[in-house]
Amino acid sequence: MPHATEDNITDLARQRWATAAEPRLAELMTALVDHLHAFAREVRLTEAEWARAVRWLADTGRISDDKREEFILASDVLGLSMLVVQMNHRFDAGATPATVLGPFHIDGSPPAPYGWDMAAGIDGTPLFVHGTVRDLATGEPVPDAVLDVWQADGEGVYEAQLPEVEEARLRAKYRARPDGRYCLRTVVPLGYTIPMDGPVGELVSRTAISHFRPAHIHFLIEEAGYERLVTHIFEEGTRHLDEDVVFGTKEELVVPFTRHASGTAPDGTRVDGPFATAEFDFTLQPARG
Amino acid sequence: MPHATEDNITDLARQRWATAAEPRLAELMTALVDHLHAFAREVRLTEAEWARAVRWLADTGRISDDKREEFILASDVLGLSMLVVQMNHRFDAGATPATVLGPFHIDGSPPAPYGWDMAAGIDGTPLFVHGTVRDLATGEPVPDAVLDVWQADGEGVYEAQLPEVEEARLRAKYRARPDGRYCLRTVVPLGYTIPMDGPVGELVSRTAISHFRPAHIHFLIEEAGYERLVTHIFEEGTRHLDEDVVFGTKEELVVPFTRHASGTAPDGTRVDGPFATAEFDFTLQPARG
Ligand SMILES: [Fe+2]
Ligand SMILES: [Fe+2]
Repeated sequence: MPHATEDNITDLARQRWATAAEPRLAELMTALVDHLHAFAREVRLTEAEWARAVRWLADTGRISDDKREEFILASDVLGLSMLVVQMNHRFDAGATPATVLGPFHIDGSPPAPYGWDMAAGIDGTPLFVHGTVRDLATGEPVPDAVLDVWQADGEGVYEAQLPEVEEARLRAKYRARPDGRYCLRTVVPLGYTIPMDGPVGELVSRTAISHFRPAHIHFLIEEAGYERLVTHIFEEGTRHLDEDVVFGTKEELVVPFTRHASGTAPDGTRVDGPFATAEFDFTLQPARG
Repeated sequence: MPHATEDNITDLARQRWATAAEPRLAELMTALVDHLHAFAREVRLTEAEWARAVRWLADTGRISDDKREEFILASDVLGLSMLVVQMNHRFDAGATPATVLGPFHIDGSPPAPYGWDMAAGIDGTPLFVHGTVRDLATGEPVPDAVLDVWQADGEGVYEAQLPEVEEARLRAKYRARPDGRYCLRTVVPLGYTIPMDGPVGELVSRTAISHFRPAHIHFLIEEAGYERLVTHIFEEGTRHLDEDVVFGTKEELVVPFTRHASGTAPDGTRVDGPFATAEFDFTLQPARG
């Protein structure tokens, strides 16, 4: 192999990484070399900038642990996470669109019956989310679908960010009824800021970018015969809907939250005092190949 | 700002990062968004691959500390470091070319006189490197230039990688004489492998890429009126010259190491037993603008 020059080094690096044993790794690494070098050439990266980028990457890794995923956050604010989600979930028109999973999902949430309050003991306005899980192709209800739901508290904190929690907190797996209907009880979510005390926040703070996410509730629906659906619902009219820092908002996922002074909830329970209801049907894309 | 789709998200992310207060940061971040998204689109990155990349980045940061710079290593093996060096040091023909600094330079090495042995107490064949520091434009010697020199030991270990060292080890700052001549004493360097026990090594091990650097000695020459020169010399005929894992080898930096059974060294000292000599002139690019 010849020695490197400014002209040939991209080809040389490509040739080397093309030797990866797995063809897909070779494809990924050669494309990475191409785009990384093209970036450096286009901006004519200085050595000081390169050194600063290296430090930023190391700092971002060092602040990451099982409670904090700073590189996911970096990917989110660069629009990369949402691009990857969309490329991998090109659903047909009418299907509920996918959005980012985010770093706060916890596996193995407890099963919860129709109407279960996953926010017991948490401050906030009671909120009932209800509707039907449907098949996009037939329009028919999907019986017994499981909806894995999680949400931040009034401080914007997810259970995954807390040190030790005895019982599942603001998360549960709801099984829809045989007629496809589901109903969950929680509290009205609030918008929250991404963590601004790390390398990603430092970078965002040097721009005019809003560092907030609009209020939302996360859903994950995995049902045999359908594409996996990772999505949110957002409250209509909430702040930051048009400036979601992670690019996760979709028109189809914005839902009116109807306020009530008191009365009967969608699951038939009586609520004394103010509460809200939101109706949303999840329409699943039948599995492909 | 409209909600993101697969089609518009690159433009949206560009627009956001274009709001950076410093124009250069805006330029860097918008170009980064472009190239990162172009990479993800070209390979149609899957969510599993994205998740693996995020983990790899976090692991690479977490293994990094003041003794180990795993992201510099990543940049090195991707050819990015050498590309950046070359873009930023486009010297005229005849000037000694620049190569990578590497992660092992230590500031503040002790001043050393002509002929000083920076390898005292280190095993190996004595080596004298000598020559003249010259001005590219005039061909004349540069008087009193300071050459900051550092090298790995027989195990491929630099002082910067060791926990606590009492005295400078295999490094020194040599001042050339008023006639531009310098002479240093060390031991013949050996080739070494990059660290293969981290995320970068793991990736390299999945390819046919050689993980060795050819034997070399590092030089840094900073002299008023000249471009800063960071370079190496390599022993002619040593292994791995044509497969340097960091792409750092340059034809002009390969020097014959002449072997002697015993005799008089270039600085006039008598050596009983085998030693080697290497003659190399450093030709400095006069400073620009
Ligand atoms: Fe969230
Ligand atoms: Fe080295």
